[in-house]
Amino acid sequence: MLTVLYVIAITAEAMTGALSAGRRGMDPVGVIFVACCTAIGGGSVRDMLLGSYPLTWVETPMYIVITTAAAILTIFLQRYMKHMFKVFLVLDAVGLITFSIIGAQKTLDLGHGYIIASVMAVITGVFGGILRDILCNNVPLVFRKELYASVALISIGFYFTLQLLGVDPNVTVISTLVFGFVFRMIAVRFKLELPKFVYKESPH
Amino acid sequence: MLTVLYVIAITAEAMTGALSAGRRGMDPVGVIFVACCTAIGGGSVRDMLLGSYPLTWVETPMYIVITTAAAILTIFLQRYMKHMFKVFLVLDAVGLITFSIIGAQKTLDLGHGYIIASVMAVITGVFGGILRDILCNNVPLVFRKELYASVALISIGFYFTLQLLGVDPNVTVISTLVFGFVFRMIAVRFKLELPKFVYKESPH
Amino acid sequence: MLTVLYVIAITAEAMTGALSAGRRGMDPVGVIFVACCTAIGGGSVRDMLLGSYPLTWVETPMYIVITTAAAILTIFLQRYMKHMFKVFLVLDAVGLITFSIIGAQKTLDLGHGYIIASVMAVITGVFGGILRDILCNNVPLVFRKELYASVALISIGFYFTLQLLGVDPNVTVISTLVFGFVFRMIAVRFKLELPKFVYKESPH
Repeated sequence: MLTVLYVIAITAEAMTGALSAGRRGMDPVGVIFVACCTAIGGGSVRDMLLGSYPLTWVETPMYIVITTAAAILTIFLQRYMKHMFKVFLVLDAVGLITFSIIGAQKTLDLGHGYIIASVMAVITGVFGGILRDILCNNVPLVFRKELYASVALISIGFYFTLQLLGVDPNVTVISTLVFGFVFRMIAVRFKLELPKFVYKESPH
Repeated sequence: MLTVLYVIAITAEAMTGALSAGRRGMDPVGVIFVACCTAIGGGSVRDMLLGSYPLTWVETPMYIVITTAAAILTIFLQRYMKHMFKVFLVLDAVGLITFSIIGAQKTLDLGHGYIIASVMAVITGVFGGILRDILCNNVPLVFRKELYASVALISIGFYFTLQLLGVDPNVTVISTLVFGFVFRMIAVRFKLELPKFVYKESPH
Repeated sequence: MLTVLYVIAITAEAMTGALSAGRRGMDPVGVIFVACCTAIGGGSVRDMLLGSYPLTWVETPMYIVITTAAAILTIFLQRYMKHMFKVFLVLDAVGLITFSIIGAQKTLDLGHGYIIASVMAVITGVFGGILRDILCNNVPLVFRKELYASVALISIGFYFTLQLLGVDPNVTVISTLVFGFVFRMIAVRFKLELPKFVYKESPH
């Protein structure tokens, strides 16, 4: 099931990357590049930090084919994209939680503890979006949008809690997906945000 | 022969990096840093994605010495740089194709397939320029200039085709270099560009 | 002793990262993320370039806990931060030299030569600050501030010289710290800067 969700997630993330590249007027190769970085960048950074080779998409090149196809599709369907904003929001939320669970579980499986697994969950969930924003020369959005990274972190806390309580693995994954998804949707609906830390030097 | 071309390529790329840092008014250490990232960043990212250690320049520190020298030379010769625009354009095209061939062949030699080898060819060819633009806080140029990344991709398709047809390796390399170089020069001369994907939100 | 200095250094660097994120109005999770990248990003990039796994903070998650705590503390103590500018400047200088020595020594211990060790010293010293500036969408400051990267480079030259002269390791470390610290303070006090390389295209 996580594999199916993973494919949905990288497709949705590739599309957000392609749209972001389109806002900067990149050519199709650039659009594909940004789309792929957005979709598989988080997992790649995680695996490079952990020294876990080969990377997922190097082992399964089909994932690169999927994200490339998603980017090309986005270019052709751009006129419909404006009406699909809510669909993206939903798919992106599914993607965020899916990436986080995969990132955390893979890190635990490699023998690391809960702190590193939490860090890797957040990195897997949000680093693709950070790369997208860096490549498009924007201040990363993920730390300003409605609780984006926080949803990943709290969902993983929820996931670990269920796991430590001895809940069945499948139930744990599904519960976390529902919990994180509902949490994110509530955050978006009510524009929940953490209070910003705004630091200004005093004028001299 | 690829080694000679590689040295020419990293020298030329280091110089474009140094000029870009100069446009941002960096100090000499910054200029050297950006120059080295531009010249050897693409290959480094490729090897880190593939988990192929040691990196080329860690094994052969002479390459770092060469790119550092190229950066210092650029600072001293800056007044002549304006008149060398066309020389750079030629050397940069040679570098792009050389990097792409080296990236693709190394990936194949590591046992990966053609999809991953194509991805790594493009990454080796263009990622140095992307790092340069990120470090200098510009939107990466490689996806906006005349067919830059596309030339790398199509040249590698050409290279694989000759290879699969059983053409002699040396002939394959030379043919790809000539093909890619001419293709790039035509693209620059006639300002060929892929149609940009410009995405704008509809105003509400 | 280097461990104590390392903890002081990552704490100070995390705080400069948190302040920088605050200037961009990020939320607390973003502030923590930027703080951690600033504090441990340089060492992580060094180890990823060298293929030296596990990364320091993956092996010792306590370092992540410390930098996270430093980031949270910065948010709560922001009103006092303005008055601590000079404290930061001192701690940051200690951090720069500490990071550089650790980076150089670790690289030598892995069997690499002096050129690569010098490169890794500078990367360990300055890359955290570069990541901070990229994530906050600024042109990296480290190449524009008073001799920042240059102090790292020259201090490491000093360190290698003492080492080659057969000076006792502890004396070498302490001497380098004093040398680099005084050098940096003089550079800051007298606003020493290398002449900038400012490159402008001639108007046509």
